[in-house]
Amino acid sequence: MSDAPVLLTPGPLTTSARTRQAMMMDWGSWDRDFNQLTASLCEQLLTILNGHASHHCVPLQGSGTFAVEAAIGTLVPRDGKVLVLINGAYGQRLAKICKVLGRAYSTFQTAEDEPTTAADVDRLLREDPSISHVALIHCETSTGILNPLAEIAQVVARHGKQLIIDAMSSFGALPIDAAQVPFTALIAASGKCLEGVPGMGFVFAEKTALAAAEGNSPSLAMDLHDQHAYLSKTGQWRFTPPTHVVAALHEALLQYNEEGGLPARHQRYADNCAALLDGMAKLGLRSFLPPAIQAPIIVTFHAPRDSRYQFKDFYERVKAKGFILYPGKLTEVETFRVGCIGCVGPDGMRAAVDAVAEVLREMEVMDI
Amino acid sequence: MSDAPVLLTPGPLTTSARTRQAMMMDWGSWDRDFNQLTASLCEQLLTILNGHASHHCVPLQGSGTFAVEAAIGTLVPRDGKVLVLINGAYGQRLAKICKVLGRAYSTFQTAEDEPTTAADVDRLLREDPSISHVALIHCETSTGILNPLAEIAQVVARHGKQLIIDAMSSFGALPIDAAQVPFTALIAASGKCLEGVPGMGFVFAEKTALAAAEGNSPSLAMDLHDQHAYLSKTGQWRFTPPTHVVAALHEALLQYNEEGGLPARHQRYADNCAALLDGMAKLGLRSFLPPAIQAPIIVTFHAPRDSRYQFKDFYERVKAKGFILYPGKLTEVETFRVGCIGCVGPDGMRAAVDAVAEVLREMEVMDI
Repeated sequence: MSDAPVLLTPGPLTTSARTRQAMMMDWGSWDRDFNQLTASLCEQLLTILNGHASHHCVPLQGSGTFAVEAAIGTLVPRDGKVLVLINGAYGQRLAKICKVLGRAYSTFQTAEDEPTTAADVDRLLREDPSISHVALIHCETSTGILNPLAEIAQVVARHGKQLIIDAMSSFGALPIDAAQVPFTALIAASGKCLEGVPGMGFVFAEKTALAAAEGNSPSLAMDLHDQHAYLSKTGQWRFTPPTHVVAALHEALLQYNEEGGLPARHQRYADNCAALLDGMAKLGLRSFLPPAIQAPIIVTFHAPRDSRYQFKDFYERVKAKGFILYPGKLTEVETFRVGCIGCVGPDGMRAAVDAVAEVLREMEVMDI
Repeated sequence: MSDAPVLLTPGPLTTSARTRQAMMMDWGSWDRDFNQLTASLCEQLLTILNGHASHHCVPLQGSGTFAVEAAIGTLVPRDGKVLVLINGAYGQRLAKICKVLGRAYSTFQTAEDEPTTAADVDRLLREDPSISHVALIHCETSTGILNPLAEIAQVVARHGKQLIIDAMSSFGALPIDAAQVPFTALIAASGKCLEGVPGMGFVFAEKTALAAAEGNSPSLAMDLHDQHAYLSKTGQWRFTPPTHVVAALHEALLQYNEEGGLPARHQRYADNCAALLDGMAKLGLRSFLPPAIQAPIIVTFHAPRDSRYQFKDFYERVKAKGFILYPGKLTEVETFRVGCIGCVGPDGMRAAVDAVAEVLREMEVMDI
């Protein structure tokens, strides 16, 4: 539907008509054709990660958070202890998952504009030898901040500990090579940088760790060991898969590869981000993060100071012009966010900036 | 796609083109339009159950099993004890969920062609006063057997115990009136008799029980108390919803009401079932269950005795003629299953029977 607004949100995002068209067929979840679709999906996902030798890809029903909880529940043994690195709401959520699952954990929190450093992690692991796992958000969607994954992974491996990475909003757009970056689990979902529709997540689980995880999970539905074992044996998901979501993601991956794979996707999002930052700067709108730690996924902007600015009004007016923005998620500073991901290019971003400019004029917002 | 086979399976099933067409738009999960879709969905679901006064409708990401696990984890307190009534694979799964979640439970098992009776439940509850909850499969998809829900619910209520009903394959087609049948939770999913696509479940949770369930859940993602509280407060799902699946179910419900609601849906499935049983009987194929306990949802047939019959070959040949059947799920008897649900009518069922007849001739299967 051509008059639907463009979603400049961190997922669900705008998908291509071809991806949505793949949902126009019903699939039997027990049928060979669907099993082949699942196998092809996992194969393509492992290729993006260069993970065939080291990791299994385990798809899971539900949102990305379901897959994160499944990874922690399955891969952290009941007597394990998780160091959770936090600089935003998704890091907080990791800690909450550990708490609810009854896994021991400690947290290390930096400001929302301050990446965790490898030196921090090195010190924390030296101070507490009881830590078995480190959990990290690669790109924290609260702000768009990028944490230094490769450096942290090296430190964690040197200490002989295991790394769990929430790469929800980076996988597929920012390079991660499983042959270079050691980790036990990396989690992402269908409706983010791969530009599928939401409804499933997937966990890349290191083969030895997954094999050793039988019986760890405090959940039946979210037991990744069982999910993988059943899938390996039968080619089928253990419980009813979201067939249309799987078909859409498969079609989205074909387009991902046709576009040129990760380098092309990364470049387009970087171009989107540059067009956005450039255009918004011309309007006087300041981004929350310095460029060095800004991932080209989602940008947080300070709200205008003008009292005539109200986010709700601003949002509705920009939506009426064809673009859906995202509210801020910071506690201390008033902000709003604009996603750079989805089936949209730099021209689309410039059109969004134009819409923002018009709306600010309409609202008579002067003091940016 | 008109050449896709008809799914005669217990879900995912064949949906209407209009339902699938509803997935051709992307929705912002934070947007008001989507919140209204969710609210309308829950409203319509409660109406089918006549549950507005007594129950909340809590939607959940994932397959139906996720919703069943969420209901048990959220609504059975950690010191509760569940009596699980079993006559098939889905009853076994209920028991497995209790086991994995660490909830105390006992089981009562009858043969796969023998419904649990209210008298059984009465006796079991008298024998073990420590039981707090009874868990029942309404229509057991393993065979298609119907358990006497209304009678069992009265007994459970008389004992002052709480009833959890897995109505996955019956909700929307078989009448259940929350004002007449007392229960604490009833669970179903999008891709069954409502004829949506798979990817979400929903739990009708009794209001007082849900309010008392804070902190029960051993899972963050599957905490129905939190899911409901957040939805009530914000209109949004706690974690990313499967937006396209939600839109498809909403569209399917509009068609459900246009068709005439539950009575019409029930009648069409009953007509489908009658056409199927009648046609298959003429071919000499015997159904596993006697008519009195056969729900019009899925029918289990004895496999032909002839050694030239092989399910895999039979399945592929029937599929080539446009119909996807379902394997049997009984341990002791060789069977196959045919679903009566989905966007299909009695003529479609007769065409499926014709395809089966042709295939048996092609395979030279004589001894039925």
